[in-house]
Amino acid sequence: MTQEQFDSLAEKIGKVPKIFQDLEKINPELFKSVMGLDQLVWDDGCLTRKEKKLIAVAIAAALRDPHAVRAQIAGAPHLGISLAEIEEALRVTFLLSGMPAYVYGRTAAEEIYSK
Amino acid sequence: MTQEQFDSLAEKIGKVPKIFQDLEKINPELFKSVMGLDQLVWDDGCLTRKEKKLIAVAIAAALRDPHAVRAQIAGAPHLGISLAEIEEALRVTFLLSGMPAYVYGRTAAEEIYSK
Amino acid sequence: MTQEQFDSLAEKIGKVPKIFQDLEKINPELFKSVMGLDQLVWDDGCLTRKEKKLIAVAIAAALRDPHAVRAQIAGAPHLGISLAEIEEALRVTFLLSGMPAYVYGRTAAEEIYSK
Amino acid sequence: MTQEQFDSLAEKIGKVPKIFQDLEKINPELFKSVMGLDQLVWDDGCLTRKEKKLIAVAIAAALRDPHAVRAQIAGAPHLGISLAEIEEALRVTFLLSGMPAYVYGRTAAEEIYSK
Amino acid sequence: MTQEQFDSLAEKIGKVPKIFQDLEKINPELFKSVMGLDQLVWDDGCLTRKEKKLIAVAIAAALRDPHAVRAQIAGAPHLGISLAEIEEALRVTFLLSGMPAYVYGRTAAEEIYSK
Amino acid sequence: MTQEQFDSLAEKIGKVPKIFQDLEKINPELFKSVMGLDQLVWDDGCLTRKEKKLIAVAIAAALRDPHAVRAQIAGAPHLGISLAEIEEALRVTFLLSGMPAYVYGRTAAEEIYSK
Repeated sequence: MTQEQFDSLAEKIGKVPKIFQDLEKINPELFKSVMGLDQLVWDDGCLTRKEKKLIAVAIAAALRDPHAVRAQIAGAPHLGISLAEIEEALRVTFLLSGMPAYVYGRTAAEEIYSK
Repeated sequence: MTQEQFDSLAEKIGKVPKIFQDLEKINPELFKSVMGLDQLVWDDGCLTRKEKKLIAVAIAAALRDPHAVRAQIAGAPHLGISLAEIEEALRVTFLLSGMPAYVYGRTAAEEIYSK
Repeated sequence: MTQEQFDSLAEKIGKVPKIFQDLEKINPELFKSVMGLDQLVWDDGCLTRKEKKLIAVAIAAALRDPHAVRAQIAGAPHLGISLAEIEEALRVTFLLSGMPAYVYGRTAAEEIYSK
Repeated sequence: MTQEQFDSLAEKIGKVPKIFQDLEKINPELFKSVMGLDQLVWDDGCLTRKEKKLIAVAIAAALRDPHAVRAQIAGAPHLGISLAEIEEALRVTFLLSGMPAYVYGRTAAEEIYSK
Repeated sequence: MTQEQFDSLAEKIGKVPKIFQDLEKINPELFKSVMGLDQLVWDDGCLTRKEKKLIAVAIAAALRDPHAVRAQIAGAPHLGISLAEIEEALRVTFLLSGMPAYVYGRTAAEEIYSK
Repeated sequence: MTQEQFDSLAEKIGKVPKIFQDLEKINPELFKSVMGLDQLVWDDGCLTRKEKKLIAVAIAAALRDPHAVRAQIAGAPHLGISLAEIEEALRVTFLLSGMPAYVYGRTAAEEIYSK
């Protein structure tokens, strides 16, 4: 894995690259497959990367997954996503997954955007 | 609740309007509050209705909620959303919530879009 | 398992008694343990059976579990629980787990209480 | 938002009032709607506030949501809820959502009630 | 996709091959990536296919996913897995995800193994 | 509860024995029932303890339950389970519950096995 791929992954899934570095050594085939899938998910298509990032943030909050929500939001500013856009995506989370799910997302967003 | 509000709701949450009609009678205040919240979530803001619908479809699939996923996708064609756009949103669901979650969304989408 | 225990179980978990009958044959010890635990959960203590049933209905809806929600609500009328009480318990579900979770509970309640 | 409303909210959802203060500024309409809904959920009705709080604790534990469970239990002593009542509500969580869900609730309850 | 790959997939994920056939046409790259990942997951390694299938059954039940649990169990008899082995795997599901999750798995297992 | 039972439990569910000690005092019957169930789940049967532990690790990760996943993996080395075996079990988690679920399990495994 090149440094560039590494940084790109760190941005997307947060501080877990060591796991994936290990995966590359232990099982290069699985590593390649996961990375390939990841790229196919994020590549621009009918939807922009930005739209897909907002979807990912809203899903991670709906699943009440503190690591995933932080990791997804961490990559959001680089894609030109505003805090207001995230807040609006999280309203859909509120409706479909309840107030605490919204709070997960909102808290992580405040932290990351106030840095 | 006017017929128009009714149809709009049916489109958004699927075949459950009877529940909400009852709610209007039993507890008009709660009904009004829920409807108000619902409208605030869906109104155009930083994100378009279309973008929010795609977020809702992806969340509902990620939660493996067959009713919510069907209800959300049911409203998608009216907003000019293509099957390819839904499929792409569901790839994010795949990554964050696994293959069966993707299959939930994809199966519902095929059914609704092939009508 | 006596017929009485059987009926009591059927009331609590719905149409799955065959599974537990089998369990009694295959593994009487596990069966006894599960039944004992079940009884300890439902026995009157600080909370009444009625209060615990309302908690069970609200949890099952919050987990979006259509079988559990139906099974729990099926036993509710026998405990003197009104539809209005279930509806109010489900509002807590709405707040903590989102609108579709409320709809799961409410739909099952309407069906069972309109019989 | 008055200080009183603020304290009431903090008691219910824990240490996240800043998010809701911001929401009041960014989007006063959504804020009002969420607060209104919240009040309608918690108001005494067929069920008492105490009964609804026990339901909320049990749901939050069943969803394995550490923040929501802590926040809900934080408000419990003020409503005259005993640790034994919470423990009994959490047994329903054990049955419907497994031992780790019970442990989430029980651990938070011990912490808050031993202060 | 050859007929053989098709049958192998149908066995693993149940009656959803049409979705994947479509995926092969719409987006052959994503299709290839998903299939490759799938194969890497199921290939014999430190664990046998049989052990991994039991893990998959237990996870699908723990997630209360009726489609995934049916699909995973459908492939179990071909791998020489007995009903008693599935039942024992599902006890772990009971402990970690509650009685209704166990019931999901057990019901699906009874149906498939009694054919 | 003897010290031995205590240590055995601590190994299985991690640092929560105080809760269960309390349970033994508050409600010895429930305590006995839960312990009995626990033993029946883990006893060797068709599946070995090792196989059941791998199932438990994979479920806990699939449920994104950081406490349960850590607690389950904590007991794994004592049963002769290698990091490679855990990693392979977690691939099934990846497929059925998404990349972040895999990351939960993998991160906990790295921590515990690098001690």
